[in-house]
This record gives sequence, C-alpha cells and structure tokens, in this order.
Amino acid sequence: MIVKPSNLKGTRDFNAQQIYKRNYLFNTLTETFEQYGFGPIETPAMENLATLTGKYGEEGDQLLFKVLNNGDFLSKVDENILSNKDSNASVSQLSKRGLRYDLTVPFARFVSQNQNDISFPFKRYQIQPVWRADRPQKGRYQEFYQCDCDVVGSESLLLEAELVQIYDSAFSKLGLEVVIKINNRKVLWGLSEVAGIINLFVEMTTVIDKLDKIGLESVLNELTTKGIDSNGIEIINQFLSAKSTAEIRNLFDGKSETGIKGLDEIDEVFGYFKDSPLRNTLLFDSTLARGLSYYTGCIFEVQAVGVKMGSIGGGGRYADLTSSFGLKNVSGVGVSFGAERIYDVMEELNLFPEYTGKEIQLILLSFDDNCLKSAFKLATFLRSNGLRVDVYPDPVKMAKQMKYADSRKIPFVLIIGSDEIKSGNYSLKNLTTGEQISVNKEQIVDFLTEKKK
Amino acid sequence: MIVKPSNLKGTRDFNAQQIYKRNYLFNTLTETFEQYGFGPIETPAMENLATLTGKYGEEGDQLLFKVLNNGDFLSKVDENILSNKDSNASVSQLSKRGLRYDLTVPFARFVSQNQNDISFPFKRYQIQPVWRADRPQKGRYQEFYQCDCDVVGSESLLLEAELVQIYDSAFSKLGLEVVIKINNRKVLWGLSEVAGIINLFVEMTTVIDKLDKIGLESVLNELTTKGIDSNGIEIINQFLSAKSTAEIRNLFDGKSETGIKGLDEIDEVFGYFKDSPLRNTLLFDSTLARGLSYYTGCIFEVQAVGVKMGSIGGGGRYADLTSSFGLKNVSGVGVSFGAERIYDVMEELNLFPEYTGKEIQLILLSFDDNCLKSAFKLATFLRSNGLRVDVYPDPVKMAKQMKYADSRKIPFVLIIGSDEIKSGNYSLKNLTTGEQISVNKEQIVDFLTEKKK
Repeated sequence: MIVKPSNLKGTRDFNAQQIYKRNYLFNTLTETFEQYGFGPIETPAMENLATLTGKYGEEGDQLLFKVLNNGDFLSKVDENILSNKDSNASVSQLSKRGLRYDLTVPFARFVSQNQNDISFPFKRYQIQPVWRADRPQKGRYQEFYQCDCDVVGSESLLLEAELVQIYDSAFSKLGLEVVIKINNRKVLWGLSEVAGIINLFVEMTTVIDKLDKIGLESVLNELTTKGIDSNGIEIINQFLSAKSTAEIRNLFDGKSETGIKGLDEIDEVFGYFKDSPLRNTLLFDSTLARGLSYYTGCIFEVQAVGVKMGSIGGGGRYADLTSSFGLKNVSGVGVSFGAERIYDVMEELNLFPEYTGKEIQLILLSFDDNCLKSAFKLATFLRSNGLRVDVYPDPVKMAKQMKYADSRKIPFVLIIGSDEIKSGNYSLKNLTTGEQISVNKEQIVDFLTEKKK
Repeated sequence: MIVKPSNLKGTRDFNAQQIYKRNYLFNTLTETFEQYGFGPIETPAMENLATLTGKYGEEGDQLLFKVLNNGDFLSKVDENILSNKDSNASVSQLSKRGLRYDLTVPFARFVSQNQNDISFPFKRYQIQPVWRADRPQKGRYQEFYQCDCDVVGSESLLLEAELVQIYDSAFSKLGLEVVIKINNRKVLWGLSEVAGIINLFVEMTTVIDKLDKIGLESVLNELTTKGIDSNGIEIINQFLSAKSTAEIRNLFDGKSETGIKGLDEIDEVFGYFKDSPLRNTLLFDSTLARGLSYYTGCIFEVQAVGVKMGSIGGGGRYADLTSSFGLKNVSGVGVSFGAERIYDVMEELNLFPEYTGKEIQLILLSFDDNCLKSAFKLATFLRSNGLRVDVYPDPVKMAKQMKYADSRKIPFVLIIGSDEIKSGNYSLKNLTTGEQISVNKEQIVDFLTEKKK
C-alpha cells in the first residue's frame, strides 16, 4: 500500500540549516545556564497519566496527548462506559501514559522522586520538546521545544537576581535587545487587600494580565463588572499607572504588610545590580500579572525590543510546586525561554551567524572511476586533518556534479582529473566568487582551516 | 491529590553527568558524520499512524505506541467494534497518531515528501529517541536513542567505503576497538541459488542470522528441518566455513551471477582501503545475514573487542526504502550506531573523559548577607570572563555550605569574609587535595581558565 508522505498537522520536520540555527540558540542558552552553576536533566517523553492530569486545569487536561494502552485494551474498559460512548470516563481505562505537556511538572516529579539523592539548592536546566493537542495555527505547534531553568530549595533573592542576569547575558550573547519586566505576586495581593477585594484576587489578576492586549480602560471596565466598587477601581487605576515601587509603597503604607514585603523583594533584586550593571533594561511593571496561579513571589517577563512579538520569556517564584508529589515547602524560582519565538525573532532580525561551523566546506568531483578512487584517498587525508569534505560518489557529467555542489551551497569545489593526480596540484575553486587557487593537499588543509575561523 | 512520583516502567530520567557523557558520545558521532558531508535532520515524535503501520511486521505493529485521538474519540468508533471489545479493529478509529518506532521510516517519509527540494545523493544523519512497547528489562527500554547515518540516491560503492570509514573513525575517536564485519545479501542469494533453495531464501537467512547464538551445527540441523537436502546442507556448510571471498568465488563459479556480483562488491569496498588503511579490522564474514528484509547489497555489523556485548552497530544497502511512499528506485545505504550499548561499553571500559568541560568549576561561600552581596559581584566578574561559577545563595553555617560543595563534587571553593572583601585577596581551595592558594580576582580567572584545558 502506498501512503502519501506527510507530516501530522501541527508537527514539523527540521532540515540541517534549521537544526544548526536552533543548536546555536540552544548552545548559547546552555553555556549561560552552566556559567551560573545549572546542570541539565532530561525526563522521558511519556509520564504516568496520573502525574500529568489535574496539573494544567480542565482545558490543559483536554490538551494532553494520551497514549493508548497496548494489547487488548478494550477488554479493560467498563461495559457501560463503552455502550454510552463516554470518552471522558474511558480515558483512565484506555490510557495510563501521557506525553509531556511542559517541563515544570516532570521537573517537580523528578525532584520529589530523587529528593534523597539531590543536593539542595538544586539548579537544573532542561531543553526538550513538549506536546499539546492545541489547534494548529501559524506559530503554534503540537510539538515544540521548551527551555527551562529553575532552582529549588532556597528562598534567597540572590537567585532572582541571577535569573535576571541569565536573561540579560543570554540575550546579549544572541544579539537581541530586550526589556526584562519584574513584578511580584505579593504586590498584587497587596493591591487586592488595599482595594478591599481579596475575595476577587484571582479574577483581578486574570483581568490585569490582559492589559497589554485590551488596554487600561477595558481592564477597569471589566473589573467593574466583576463587582469592584468605584473606590477599588480608583486604587487599581493608581496602581496600574504607577511607574516605581516608591509610588506603590505610598499606596500600601500601613495597609498591606504582604504588599510592602513584595515591594521590598523587588527593591532587593534591583539592589544587586547597583554594582553589577545589566546590559538590558530591568523594568518594574506594576501591570505584569502572569497567568499561572502557582507563582507566589517575584515574576518576570521578557519583551524583545524592535519587533512585534508577545513575550519571549517569563517565570517567577513558586512556593509549593512539588507538594502534589508529597514533597512540601520547597520554594523555587525559575525562568523559561520561549525558544520558538526567539528563533523567529532572530530570523526576522537576521541575528543568526552566517556560518555555524558545521557546514560542509569542500566537495571533490571526479572525471572517471580512476579519479574517483583518488578523490576517496584525498578526502580521507583531508578529513583526517579535521576538514568537512564530501566526494560526489559517481563520475557523471561534470555539469551535473557542479550543479549538485551549487544546490547544496558548498563553498569550495576541487575537480580531480588525471593531470591533478599526476602532479598532486589541484585547483581549489570558490563557488561564490569564482576565484581559484592552485594548491597541494597540505595547502588545502591550511587554507580551509584558516577559512573556518 | 498526592501522586507517588515515579517514572513509567521502561523509561528513564537522565542527570547532568549522564547527559554530559551521552553528549560526548553524540558529539563525537556528529562531528564524524559532518566530516563526511552528512547533515542532520529531525522528524516529529508523532507520525501519521498510517505512515508507521505495516512497516515493521505484525509484531512491530503491536509494539507501536498509538496516541489516543482527542475530543470525543469514542463517538467515532463503530458500535459493533465497541460491543465486541475488538481492540485491534478499534485502533484505526481511536488513533491516528503513532510514536516514532525507528528513524528509518520517518527518513523514508521525509525523503519522499521533500524529493523536489532535496539534492540527491542526499546524506543525512539523525539522532533522536524512538519508542517501543517492548516488555521492559535490563538494557531494554521503551524510550531509547537511535543514531542513523544514510545516503540515498546513488549506487556507488564509494559510499559503502565511506560508511566503513565512519565506523572506523568514530570508534577510534571514542577509544573503542572494534571489528567491522561485512557481507552482501547478493552473496547470500547466490548461496541459495547454488544450494538450489531460492524458494527458502528468507528462511535460510533467518536461520543463518542466529549462527552467533546457536552455533554451526544447530544452524545446519535447523536448515535440514526446513527441507534442505544433504547436498544443499553441504554447500551451506562450506559457505559458512569460508574465510575469504575467493573461497566462495570457487563455490559460485559459473553457478550464480548474482552471487559473483555480491563478491565483486565486497572486493571493491576492500579495494578502497589499500591506499587508505583503516585503524580497526574490516572482516569479511560469510555468516553475517542481518535480519531486516529490506537489505539488497552490502551489509555491516560492528562488534566491540574485549567486552561481552551484542553488535554495537549495523546497516547495509537497500534498493527501495521509499517506494511505500510513492518514490521508486532510490537506492540507499546506511549504518546505525547502537547508542545505548556503546554508552554501556564505554562505561564498562571507562572510556568517557573525566572532564567534559561543562561541569561547574568553583563555588563562592559567604559568612553573612554583606559577604553574599560581594560574592554576587565577584561571581558576575568571573562569569563574564567565561568561568562556570556558583554562589551558595544563603549565608548559612559554613559547614553546611562546604557539605553542599562536596556533595556536588565542585572542584574549588572560595570563602568570602570581611577580610577578603577589604583586601581583594581570596583563598582558593582545592576540595580534592585540600591545597589552597591566595589569589585576586584576575588570578582566579587565569588559574581556572588554565585548569579547564
């Protein structure tokens, strides 16, 4: 049976050029993480479905990819569920495995599982694909990479400062100018206290989180419909318009201890950079809320300067990520790099280096079978000297071999004929400029090793 | 709800040390592939189930992980199938996605799908995990890496020679002595012709493939039970005992053109190494059969010297891998590295370098909050000079901080007190030897940059 070859919707193949670029991005992040004492972990693509279920809200549960049990899986499902075609009820009987939906839950599972072998504070980074059954659309995939960097087991704000430096350093290395926004969930809690709406805290943060998209007026209107009175709205308005922690300190003074603590934390983080200035802007943003409910302290979001694009990174402090796996009271803080968006921004701004140091450097072309054997021998020599060399494997018409070199964008070609074999001198041709130079085999090594740098 | 944290059976987490070692292995392979003009591709974890089904035999179909459709998946399944609990019949209605089972089928799909954008001969390597619902046991996992290196679009035997060089070069770089065995499926076909049993070709190769495990006598006995007469058995016996292609040439002379062609191919591959000697042994092995049915020419298998372990690599030439995706007559040849086994052999022989150049080099410990702030500043300086440095984030008891440095096996510590801040001179302590030297911040950079090499 012939199958039409195609990818699943929402998934992608990657060719060499894309992989080289992506690896350049990942290697830059990895190098940065490691300079700060973070080490890698990897977790399996599949987790117990029970590990994943209930961690991402009801919508998230729907978007988990579940793996069908093997063998005679239908025999284990209740008659009633099958006859009622109750898909939801059948899931736990049909499937015990789910695909990783993010890197946070597997990390929490890993830490809880290995708590006796881990030295705390535990600094880990993780760069792996995740899978979500989202409706595919431009820029949204069902398989995509996440890059997370977390430390658990200490409440020190020095870690927040290090994570800000990691953003600053990594984006500088990538040549991408960014604004790193900081706020604190305690400050938002303070706002709900001062506005007298602690019962509406979640609704309030959810609406504030949309400020970027819908604007201040719509936010205030929407908050009014949630039942917040005009006094509360006025306080929220002042809060969202504040440009410094000092302004908000006035608003909170004597009214919210938690809020003041949140402001102190932000100020302490800023304090670290007095003597160690950042290259990018760290900006206090009272309107930054972050949707995820597990944050309890400082929160971050990163915006690229000069391109239209949502946030390219985010994170924050959480108090209790591992408690659902039985490990209580382990505070942590982490940031995430939006790899797919960063890749797109770098493409748009042309920030990838032209040469990643992995591309093939030279191809050898041959006039006949005898030349091909010489080409093999020459290639063996050049490769053993560290060059990346291809040999066109058939002595077909030279025009066809040249066309191949062109289409693969190989920078240099070397044509081998009987004269070259006799003399040991070759014409090394630059396919971009058309220039050619006469070289022996040692000179090829010297010339292309120099080019590589 | 509290979930006991655990991996799924047959899957593994990887910690930093394991990842560094694995990356050392993968980087060595990648570097070798790229020296021979191969470029990477990556394909998605999930493929259309129709792409995978029927490619791996009936048993393989059972071992495919199938992903449950999302939404109200039961509503799409026939009443009859549900009421009969007919699991097999339900699969295609419950699932349209499967997890990658190997890298060969996704590669064939990729080539067929992108045939108009690819320049042939197309040289690709691919290093990604695959998933199989095998019963987990020691050394056998449900998620494991494969490393494949293939070229499609040329019948040139130069490519066979290059793949032998790739094995030779990669294993040399890894410090692992190997024997690379070569045979040819045409030679085995020749045997079936000469023995008069072309109708039993598949059965014959399947039995010969077991020779390593069960021995020559059992092989001949088993072949007898397949209905091969004593004359045929005698020819097979001579064949399997042959030590050179010349011996078999005598056996085939005038009786099997295909067999002679296979021997010519082997001799031609050997011919390439007359002027370009290998570091490891390339051995003609008439008993090498390779189980997979799609091989049509040279076949390879690699054995590590000095350890008890099955083959750590294998591959061969195939005529028609892409035809099930509608792309006919594309000859290819490829080899695969058994990453998990190579890792285990390297561990056993202690071949991984002690230092992979990624580990943290130094940790700064602080007596109080003020020292912690100085530590942050010093760390910022050291990191900006390329060092990998951690700061213990809380000024807790020094014994606790030292214990942490020990447990993470960090090679150097530097304790910051008020004297050090005043003088700018620090005691850099080697945690292995106990030695300490007095240094300023520039000297730390010089000292540890030197150490790194």
